Amino acid sequence: MYRTHNCGELRISEVDKDIVLAGWVQTIRKFGSITFIDLRDRYGITQLLFGEELTATLDSNPLGREFVLQVKGKVAERSNKNKNIPTGDIEVLVDSFTILNKSAVPPFTIQDDTDGGDDLRMKYRYLDLRRNAVKKNLELRYAVGRSTRNYLHEQGFMDIETPFLIKSTPEGARDFVVPSRMNEGQFYALPQSPQTFKQLLMVSGYDRYYQIVKCFRDEDLRADRQPEFTQIDCEMSFVEQEDVLSMFEGLVKRIFKDVKNIDYNEQVQRMTWEDAMWHYGNDKPDIRFCMKLANLKFPHYVFPAKQGDSGTIAGTDFKVFNDAETVLAIAVPGAAEYSRKQLDELTEWVKRPQIGMMGMVNIRYNADGSLKSSVDKFFTEDKLRQIANVAEAKAGDLILILAGREERTRKAMSELRLEMGRRLGLRKDDEFKLLWVLDFPLFEYNEENNRWVARHHPFTSPKPSDIETMISNDPAIADPEKYLEHPYANIKANAYDMVLNGNEIGGGSIRIYQKELQSKMFDALGMSREEANEKFGFLLGAFEYGAPPHGGIAFGFDRLCAILGGSESIRDFIAFPKNNSGRDVMIDAPASIDSKQLDELRLSLK
Amino acid sequence: MYRTHNCGELRISEVDKDIVLAGWVQTIRKFGSITFIDLRDRYGITQLLFGEELTATLDSNPLGREFVLQVKGKVAERSNKNKNIPTGDIEVLVDSFTILNKSAVPPFTIQDDTDGGDDLRMKYRYLDLRRNAVKKNLELRYAVGRSTRNYLHEQGFMDIETPFLIKSTPEGARDFVVPSRMNEGQFYALPQSPQTFKQLLMVSGYDRYYQIVKCFRDEDLRADRQPEFTQIDCEMSFVEQEDVLSMFEGLVKRIFKDVKNIDYNEQVQRMTWEDAMWHYGNDKPDIRFCMKLANLKFPHYVFPAKQGDSGTIAGTDFKVFNDAETVLAIAVPGAAEYSRKQLDELTEWVKRPQIGMMGMVNIRYNADGSLKSSVDKFFTEDKLRQIANVAEAKAGDLILILAGREERTRKAMSELRLEMGRRLGLRKDDEFKLLWVLDFPLFEYNEENNRWVARHHPFTSPKPSDIETMISNDPAIADPEKYLEHPYANIKANAYDMVLNGNEIGGGSIRIYQKELQSKMFDALGMSREEANEKFGFLLGAFEYGAPPHGGIAFGFDRLCAILGGSESIRDFIAFPKNNSGRDVMIDAPASIDSKQLDELRLSLK
Repeated sequence: MYRTHNCGELRISEVDKDIVLAGWVQTIRKFGSITFIDLRDRYGITQLLFGEELTATLDSNPLGREFVLQVKGKVAERSNKNKNIPTGDIEVLVDSFTILNKSAVPPFTIQDDTDGGDDLRMKYRYLDLRRNAVKKNLELRYAVGRSTRNYLHEQGFMDIETPFLIKSTPEGARDFVVPSRMNEGQFYALPQSPQTFKQLLMVSGYDRYYQIVKCFRDEDLRADRQPEFTQIDCEMSFVEQEDVLSMFEGLVKRIFKDVKNIDYNEQVQRMTWEDAMWHYGNDKPDIRFCMKLANLKFPHYVFPAKQGDSGTIAGTDFKVFNDAETVLAIAVPGAAEYSRKQLDELTEWVKRPQIGMMGMVNIRYNADGSLKSSVDKFFTEDKLRQIANVAEAKAGDLILILAGREERTRKAMSELRLEMGRRLGLRKDDEFKLLWVLDFPLFEYNEENNRWVARHHPFTSPKPSDIETMISNDPAIADPEKYLEHPYANIKANAYDMVLNGNEIGGGSIRIYQKELQSKMFDALGMSREEANEKFGFLLGAFEYGAPPHGGIAFGFDRLCAILGGSESIRDFIAFPKNNSGRDVMIDAPASIDSKQLDELRLSLK
Repeated sequence: MYRTHNCGELRISEVDKDIVLAGWVQTIRKFGSITFIDLRDRYGITQLLFGEELTATLDSNPLGREFVLQVKGKVAERSNKNKNIPTGDIEVLVDSFTILNKSAVPPFTIQDDTDGGDDLRMKYRYLDLRRNAVKKNLELRYAVGRSTRNYLHEQGFMDIETPFLIKSTPEGARDFVVPSRMNEGQFYALPQSPQTFKQLLMVSGYDRYYQIVKCFRDEDLRADRQPEFTQIDCEMSFVEQEDVLSMFEGLVKRIFKDVKNIDYNEQVQRMTWEDAMWHYGNDKPDIRFCMKLANLKFPHYVFPAKQGDSGTIAGTDFKVFNDAETVLAIAVPGAAEYSRKQLDELTEWVKRPQIGMMGMVNIRYNADGSLKSSVDKFFTEDKLRQIANVAEAKAGDLILILAGREERTRKAMSELRLEMGRRLGLRKDDEFKLLWVLDFPLFEYNEENNRWVARHHPFTSPKPSDIETMISNDPAIADPEKYLEHPYANIKANAYDMVLNGNEIGGGSIRIYQKELQSKMFDALGMSREEANEKFGFLLGAFEYGAPPHGGIAFGFDRLCAILGGSESIRDFIAFPKNNSGRDVMIDAPASIDSKQLDELRLSLK
């Protein structure tokens, strides 16, 4: 037996017991003729005391950091207690020890503040994983998974595995493909999600399905994307949107409770997609703080913006605003006293290529109630006050205004809002605000092909009130200029996204379950009957044999864990992540394969 | 809201309540002017009663099997109770109904005894999955998974996900490969198991890891293999074999309790690999029944058999036995009265090509104590009695004897033993017998390359007492004829298989954790240092930084479920299995991909 206890469990109640421990050498401190060693394992750290004789042994048999050590000894009360660790009241008086394995000097320190850079830590990921910070992340991930499984089990969901070797359906993101040796010249694809299979399970009557499952997307990787990622994938039968929302609010609240010990008792807020875009400039608003976007050009809710000029700035003579498609303002609380230098820096910030604005106008709403703007000459104080009112500014606030093309300006203002929220400390890692975003458009217009594309995926149902519109209208767009006037432009999806602290953590929809409507959807997306049958014939077939109404959701498990762990990076929450080129630098994959393998697959490299 | 209750939960206590149900039409029975419909969902079946008026409505709006129906009505006590189903005390008096979806006539009946053949049921798997038999299998699978997770959680194991896109290491079975678009000309491989990653997690100090995880093997498929299959994959640190055995006996006993409500209180039996081969003729004996193999040529334990002739048949003159490498007997209880015809049929059975014997000798040990053999002229009654003793036969038994080449004969006798066990009803689906098979040889001899191959995998540790033998001897085999005399031939592995009712359900080992020993293993397997570094450099690297002693096990989840469900076929326990050609005939995968995809991957078909 290698150990009687682990390194995290000995307490004062075990004093005088003979015990055996095994673990890694964290630190070695020699004081005169005795030696203290901190022994570490997954469960904690225990202090070992090597007396004179053993310390002499150590001189000829030196230990180093990360050596694997087994010690036999007796538990003793410490004179100098360490209140910071659970084992801090005791130490182990070592009788004998065995070096189970040696360790070379690690390429970086195994500590919370490691001196290892990203590349080095990825190459030696097995050492990086020893660090407490990373271990805590994986423990949190496990806790989130376990909480999820428990909740869904109690709610009658069944974990059912769906296949990984499926069929390529090149829609949206690229599939990874897998050449088949037994079926010459043919390929499997790795699933981007188990979407069609979970729908088939509903057709099969499984009623409530879930899976925590790997999915694959061969996309060019951005900073925080991984070619393989994990979803909490769920589907339910005989449900309407409201049933799904309430079930999965319940899931996330349960995770909060189990993992963070947070009672999220408040009602989860809801917002239409239009409101989100109008008030926050994006479809996943961070509602931990207000600072809503005010539209100075359109007084009423019009989205997307149309030409017009009847808003707050009507009748003024500032060409930059008058020529702009959109003029947006936010009121930054308590920032009226920003220095010239601070304002210049902010202006530079919005002029960065990632944001891409030409400049920024500001209005100080001073503590004394006076208003002062960088473009005073174009605006009367009365007009400035009107703007301040529309932006819901109070005395002491700083109003920031951006103007330009609708899409870019809205995006820029959304970014600026988030940046100001961050600078003002309004986006706290330990505060969690959930939000449902609802009523997304079902279709987006694709200019290149002058046709509709599915905003979510082709299985998303229109809102019940829009089904008739969809069925009774021809999807063809006669005049590309006027696509917004096509009835399809206003069809809303029976879809929902769950947003947590400004991140989309989950999304789903009520699905189409009627064969005719599904066929109409494929039509709308420009898919021929033949193509639809080749790709999704099995689903259309299934819809002929009594498909129930159903809907579901998928959560991005990696991101959910990252946010709960207070991190922006999903990579920190994946045991063996890939880098931005899709490489695992530790195992050095992908790699060449030998020509024999290629021959067997009847493939050659171009 | 689509329903207030599901189809399995209404009881007599709900009588007079207004309820809403939704589900599938299982049966329609019209009695005069009223109609009974059985409505089915995952949870059960509820009887609906359509009165005169609604029955008339049905005439003009006919329902069919598998229609999706929503009904509103009132719960009533049934006059004619059905004790076979939990809802059998009540029925629902329907007030109104809505057809949620129609159904075409299914291509086979959705019943336990379906009229659908294998091919049809695979093509319409979403309908096959509706059948109660299949549903029960998937429910059992979910229960086994849940039981596993609960037990392992309580034992301190963490579920940690390992990557699916890894590196090809062509050892043993073939990898599925995945071309990388971003890393031109390079390929990922899908894991055959997370072996090296779970070992790295031990090096990282995670102490107890598990995963229920898909694995992939591009093998030519036999009847009961799938290209993608699921493992319960586990690893522990600071353990010896005994720790692993006791932990995972615990797991399987827990599954028995949770899933089958069986208290498996007896000690799990253990057997060395040599004993298993000697007494049962294979390394996964079905110990639900005895009928051990008796060796008539070698009185003592010698395995593999060597030339010699000192056994029970010594001094006899039957050339077939004397020329054979091996002569094996079993005593079939109570079969002495088999007819000539039955014996002929058995002889034909062993002569089938799958078994491949030339013939079979039998001895009847009659109820009166006399002995009668098909080869009486070569054996005295005294000799027959000696044989009967060695075979542990009693009066009334039938002794069956096979003779021939060692390997084939042993295999044939093993098959014959299983067949007789089956015919005699000694292999009961609802009786479960666990067995650990231990002390496997570490190496097997590969004739073709005159070198050693790993019987399990190259990370399996030799038994502690054999480590010195392994390190101090040169693996090279000077004389192929005498490979059995090489010290490596006798090295035993620190490996264990768990056998349930004659099926290997799990296997594992204590791993090598010392860099030198691992390198020696790669040497022994004929892998150059360069090759070893290219393939497993990360693992050898990890072993330099303080690898702890560790070991683990992996259970075949599909097979475990099948056996617990009393089935031979794993396919019945997989929601969407592939056929023997590795095809999913429902979605028609694998399939061709378009040339654009191939171009992006820089691949061409030969």
